[in-house]
Amino acid sequence: MRAAVLRDRRMVFRDDVPDPVPGPGQVLVSVRACGICGSDLHFAAHGDEMLSMTEQMGVGAPTVDLQSDVFMGHEFSAEVLEAGPDTDTHAPGTLVTSIPVLASPSGFEPIVYSNTTLGGYAERMLLSAPLLLPIPNGLDPKHAALTEPMAVGLHAVNKSAIAQGETALVLGCGPIGIAIIAALRIRGVETIVAADFSPKRRQLAAAMGASDTIDPAEGSPFDTVNPKVVFEAVGVPGIIDDVMRRIPPGSRIVVAGVCMQPDTVHPFFAIAKEINVQFVLAYDPTEFAESLRSIAEGDIDVRPMITGEVGLDGVGDAFDDLADPERHCKILVTP
Amino acid sequence: MRAAVLRDRRMVFRDDVPDPVPGPGQVLVSVRACGICGSDLHFAAHGDEMLSMTEQMGVGAPTVDLQSDVFMGHEFSAEVLEAGPDTDTHAPGTLVTSIPVLASPSGFEPIVYSNTTLGGYAERMLLSAPLLLPIPNGLDPKHAALTEPMAVGLHAVNKSAIAQGETALVLGCGPIGIAIIAALRIRGVETIVAADFSPKRRQLAAAMGASDTIDPAEGSPFDTVNPKVVFEAVGVPGIIDDVMRRIPPGSRIVVAGVCMQPDTVHPFFAIAKEINVQFVLAYDPTEFAESLRSIAEGDIDVRPMITGEVGLDGVGDAFDDLADPERHCKILVTP
Repeated sequence: MRAAVLRDRRMVFRDDVPDPVPGPGQVLVSVRACGICGSDLHFAAHGDEMLSMTEQMGVGAPTVDLQSDVFMGHEFSAEVLEAGPDTDTHAPGTLVTSIPVLASPSGFEPIVYSNTTLGGYAERMLLSAPLLLPIPNGLDPKHAALTEPMAVGLHAVNKSAIAQGETALVLGCGPIGIAIIAALRIRGVETIVAADFSPKRRQLAAAMGASDTIDPAEGSPFDTVNPKVVFEAVGVPGIIDDVMRRIPPGSRIVVAGVCMQPDTVHPFFAIAKEINVQFVLAYDPTEFAESLRSIAEGDIDVRPMITGEVGLDGVGDAFDDLADPERHCKILVTP
Repeated sequence: MRAAVLRDRRMVFRDDVPDPVPGPGQVLVSVRACGICGSDLHFAAHGDEMLSMTEQMGVGAPTVDLQSDVFMGHEFSAEVLEAGPDTDTHAPGTLVTSIPVLASPSGFEPIVYSNTTLGGYAERMLLSAPLLLPIPNGLDPKHAALTEPMAVGLHAVNKSAIAQGETALVLGCGPIGIAIIAALRIRGVETIVAADFSPKRRQLAAAMGASDTIDPAEGSPFDTVNPKVVFEAVGVPGIIDDVMRRIPPGSRIVVAGVCMQPDTVHPFFAIAKEINVQFVLAYDPTEFAESLRSIAEGDIDVRPMITGEVGLDGVGDAFDDLADPERHCKILVTP
């Protein structure tokens, strides 16, 4: 079957990937749509560093061999084809999504980067029967593929414990920043200020729920905004320190941007102002389900976020195109 | 009158400082004891950097001219001498302490580093009548001088929101680490592990309430402890990153050590494990009062912390002596 795989830091098209065979508890599905995530771009460019840093933490993450092809794609929607042996699941043809985790006899494996477990950049893949969520309300499976990134934003907002009357400042309006803005709106936060250098991204931020937008080229957002919670969704070295220097005393920083490089900070700034920094990643299954429900019920309209669609043979170019914030937010791969 | 002042990075003795005159709302007191704080050592050695970094934050801190003599000393106990005009206060001879803040017609000024406002390294100083706390239970004023540093520990523990069943790891057993250990014990935390390279400091940690102590020279504390909350009370570059690398997923770091230098961290470690970092400083007046009460009622015995006592002419040498963790924890200046 067809798939796009990571090989030598590039996504390449293959039409000779063996079809996966569902084991007990597993379900073979046909991928309908899979979003390209910024972390996939990171991994393609800096996979060796990511693996080395993961190893340094000693948390027992799965090993990946970058000399072999790597399967990716964790923001997917799919159609049920057939269940594995002794497995009850939804009827063939049911549209589903799932948190990106595959249960197998050897345990749970994240569907994120793997030499063996297929992700959503493929015609077909395996999912875990107990984790499947049917897509409700006749929702377009392309929109349902946004469940995962929107859950990331919801989780960041939940971890912030922000109150409705507290001012939120979102730095960076890529997909994570946008998902945070949408979640802040869902949570009823009244003042949501979004900052990004890109006019297109600022427009999108306003469409998704920002009450105000700022171009940092015209001055620091902190010159005009007095935030209680800052959501850092840029993920480049230097930004955490800059926020700690400028943020008001007693405020909170939620770090959702994934900075892979070593970063320099001045702890003194944070100490003098008693800053709280919450680093966040991913979501829990409840937040994933709530995210799907919010999209299906129309509380979050993800359509403005989808800026492109490619087939499996277009994934390589799409990875390159995503570097331009004026052109793209989320590109969907539709096998 | 006599005082020790900071001049050219050294504490020098003067016997020609004019006596302060209390204004309305102020009280002239005779200093009974004043502890030497690590931040005073920092300021003496790196005052220019501290002032420059404070300025960068634009928080409107008081200006200090390092070319002139600087008064310091913010961990004091004292005896009431006389009140300023139209000021009701405790009877002369009453032993008191206070948060280190002086109210004047121009506003509130911290008693910490100043060219004009005297601190506790002097025979006499001014305090604010409404802030005075009488020292209860016949408590020795030398022990009452520990109210301030113990309040710093209590505040750090309060900000951590640690539960009694959560394991605490305290890195660094200088005065701040020791104050944190004492506060953890007061809050009923059962497992308090303390790490320090110094055998003397480990002994002190055990005396003040640590349930276990570790010598980091014999291996990382994280090899044997699985903490939920890590209190960082060392304050040197590199330690925050090391903790983020080794700490278990989902745990919390309370940064109480004051690192003045730029520091390098890998945000990825903290993101991958969803770490929360709470930077802390000082205390509120309620915590200060609770700290005094705990000492006066015998819940915290501060005596093992007091390792030296000098007169105003011995402050310079005491600053040097505090560099040796085998000899000293807290030196009191008794004018």
